[in-house]
Amino acid sequence: MPALTFAQDVERWGIFEASFQGPATGNPFVDVKFGAKFRFKNRVLDAEGFYDGGGTYKVRLMPDETGEWSYSTYSNVPALNNKTGVVTVRPAAAGNHGPVGVKYTTHFAYADGTPYVPVGTTSYAWTHQGDALEEQTLRTLKTSPFNKMRMCVFPKHYSFNNNEPVYYPFPRDAKGVNDFTQFNPAFFAHLEKRVKELGALGIEADLILFHPYDNWGYSKMPAEVDDRYLHYIVARLAAYRNVWWSMANEYDFMKNKTMADWDRYFRIVQESDPSQHLRGIHNGTVLYDHLKPWVTHVSLQSSDLDKALEYVQKYRKPVVYDECKYEGNIHQRWGNLSAQEMVRRFWLAAVQGAYAGHAETYLDPHDVLWWSKGGVLKGDRPKRIAFLRKLMEEGPAEGLDSQSTYYLGAGQPGKYYLFYFDLNQPADHTFDLAKGSKYKAEWIDPWEMTITPVPGIFEGKFDMKLPAKPYMAVRFRKAE
Amino acid sequence: MPALTFAQDVERWGIFEASFQGPATGNPFVDVKFGAKFRFKNRVLDAEGFYDGGGTYKVRLMPDETGEWSYSTYSNVPALNNKTGVVTVRPAAAGNHGPVGVKYTTHFAYADGTPYVPVGTTSYAWTHQGDALEEQTLRTLKTSPFNKMRMCVFPKHYSFNNNEPVYYPFPRDAKGVNDFTQFNPAFFAHLEKRVKELGALGIEADLILFHPYDNWGYSKMPAEVDDRYLHYIVARLAAYRNVWWSMANEYDFMKNKTMADWDRYFRIVQESDPSQHLRGIHNGTVLYDHLKPWVTHVSLQSSDLDKALEYVQKYRKPVVYDECKYEGNIHQRWGNLSAQEMVRRFWLAAVQGAYAGHAETYLDPHDVLWWSKGGVLKGDRPKRIAFLRKLMEEGPAEGLDSQSTYYLGAGQPGKYYLFYFDLNQPADHTFDLAKGSKYKAEWIDPWEMTITPVPGIFEGKFDMKLPAKPYMAVRFRKAE
Repeated sequence: MPALTFAQDVERWGIFEASFQGPATGNPFVDVKFGAKFRFKNRVLDAEGFYDGGGTYKVRLMPDETGEWSYSTYSNVPALNNKTGVVTVRPAAAGNHGPVGVKYTTHFAYADGTPYVPVGTTSYAWTHQGDALEEQTLRTLKTSPFNKMRMCVFPKHYSFNNNEPVYYPFPRDAKGVNDFTQFNPAFFAHLEKRVKELGALGIEADLILFHPYDNWGYSKMPAEVDDRYLHYIVARLAAYRNVWWSMANEYDFMKNKTMADWDRYFRIVQESDPSQHLRGIHNGTVLYDHLKPWVTHVSLQSSDLDKALEYVQKYRKPVVYDECKYEGNIHQRWGNLSAQEMVRRFWLAAVQGAYAGHAETYLDPHDVLWWSKGGVLKGDRPKRIAFLRKLMEEGPAEGLDSQSTYYLGAGQPGKYYLFYFDLNQPADHTFDLAKGSKYKAEWIDPWEMTITPVPGIFEGKFDMKLPAKPYMAVRFRKAE
Repeated sequence: MPALTFAQDVERWGIFEASFQGPATGNPFVDVKFGAKFRFKNRVLDAEGFYDGGGTYKVRLMPDETGEWSYSTYSNVPALNNKTGVVTVRPAAAGNHGPVGVKYTTHFAYADGTPYVPVGTTSYAWTHQGDALEEQTLRTLKTSPFNKMRMCVFPKHYSFNNNEPVYYPFPRDAKGVNDFTQFNPAFFAHLEKRVKELGALGIEADLILFHPYDNWGYSKMPAEVDDRYLHYIVARLAAYRNVWWSMANEYDFMKNKTMADWDRYFRIVQESDPSQHLRGIHNGTVLYDHLKPWVTHVSLQSSDLDKALEYVQKYRKPVVYDECKYEGNIHQRWGNLSAQEMVRRFWLAAVQGAYAGHAETYLDPHDVLWWSKGGVLKGDRPKRIAFLRKLMEEGPAEGLDSQSTYYLGAGQPGKYYLFYFDLNQPADHTFDLAKGSKYKAEWIDPWEMTITPVPGIFEGKFDMKLPAKPYMAVRFRKAE
């Protein structure tokens, strides 16, 4: 009988974990093969296990069906082999909607069908800053509109971010030489704790698996170490329902890696993850081929919001401008956009059926910039993003799809339209909405966050007076 | 001896005109060939004459050198043939700088060397509105910053502009059938009067010779009529030093004309004009090949200000975004930009070594929109454009050439730099100015029109604090 550290009773999309004692000598990370087959009716999921140090081996699964599951371990070590158990999966608790996946081709939804409108932020190295700052970051997130966090697994070395991490992913000697044949379980346990805390706040952890801003050797490890690392992190974290896998930040800036490497990483993650979390890859200047089948959504670094609809139509996958430059005032051109422009970019993405992402880079006397280290938000943009998020979430479950390109507008015909007039300030416009529905109209000021009902009921093709101010929006919703 | 209506004494770049009586019967516009050879030392200029009605034939020249000129007419009519005269050309009066030409490859200057920074506006049909409105337009221009007016020779038929003109360029019968074998001298005399009045205000008349928005047949005349019209208008107006020739507004929207037609028009104008005024052509969606040798400068309809430097580098001619959409609030997307965005476009052009153009399309109860009919300016942008014009005119005579593309900046190394930070709001920037000069610096707010000196003297590569606000500029000028 297996020794279980978690109850054998678990909620749907919760974490089932089975823990076993095995060899603590030699190099368990390399020497020991261990995992479990989970069965639900005739379906089998293969979850790789991982060594957590101290002779402890764990295997986890996020069960995605209610009812009776069983499992059976496999290992090259007899003590870990052929351990079996039964798990009762009860319905998900309130607020647990399951993992996010792709729905309606170019949008997202939780596994229970609840639409998910990604409103992400970025704090690359927030888990490497020590508890005081990390907990402040979590407090900030608690009252923010953000429901996704882009974050690096590995520590980061870059402008405004030259501090050593608290934990290292691999054991190091006094000279800083890595032992890439092992992992440091404390590092991963810490990361896991933060992922779990994000989950409790309803925030997806968009985990960046590789990145170029490295001072420790993690960007140029041997291929077998890269691969072992991917297996290890998937084994540890795939049971967390709020995990997304991002192969890289700026993959094309990692000069030691080839396109074949990136393809292989995708396939390792795809094959190892029993829960099939979302998979993306973020570019520097050259887009990865997002048409490749293992890419679930388009994660872009781009300020060219004019192309959002083109990307949506080309890839037929959700398009997320994860990095369309940052609000702030730093030296670097990518980090000193005005709040107004960032809000504008969120709107431009939304009304083309895509999504934008946030980060902040305001100078700080202690070099604590949100984009890298977390802490507090200094700009006033989040409330405008919260306002847009609410408008989008009030939209149809099918998401906002492009409906107009003369002025940009998205929605679902007959149900919901959101137009954004950007630089233009017409005093009127002729709308041409899907026939068969009658609509209520509202003028929306994205910056002032006002919603002004327009008297009357509208249908078909009609001319409507507009505020004749720039950066205004109009929403139509089906009148009952 | 010739009968002269003007004195034989004329200032440099003034108008010399010789007038003769000849046949008033038959069709003088077609039957009579008439012109004059003007000689200055060994140089000969050929000026075509024109029939002004009532048996009067005129030939004009803008003499461009001081001293003794002589002329001798030629004609197929004995009464107009071989008339000779002598003209004394005195120095230009104060304020007469001569015609504008290309200087320093991608910039403009008057013939006397005074730099000309084009700050143009557009009022396509202003000369077709009757004296009351036309005189109001002139009063408006008098206090505006504009020194160039884009205007159509032919009347215009389009949204907000459906009124008949006061004058028609060709005789018409009661049914509106044109007699394309003749011209209406009153039409051209009126146009000429307005060109002269613009000249008195220091405003270049950028005369649009053809355009597609036609209700009278002028956009689809037979080729020989087009050609005769070009000869006629050049003969009448080339002596006005403030004339520019624009072959068309939106040439590519004129479906009856071929590229060979446009090339021919250019060559006719080029060959007929003894003063070689500037020649351009304005596009709809497809650029004319501005590399063709008869094109003196690039006249663009485009909102893609990001390409300004590319155009400057490609064509090696002055680049003028004559139409980068209009400030206003009308229905049409090209006519409802905010004032802020228009000011931004002027700046974006300037700091890439190019120029932008203005027009206004604010709704009016009487449909008097500046862009088409003139009248009064309703926006508040002109004062910001005046502010930029002053900054540019305080710059080096050689004009502003691109000096930086990370943040956009233009100027002349060692003398003058104007940087514009657009959407970006850095709190500081590392400038790298030409060594060997010391510079004074100023923060410039293009919207508030403030200039704030920055304490200190700067040279070489240095970091400087910036306002950390969007849409700010910085100017450096050589410290004495």
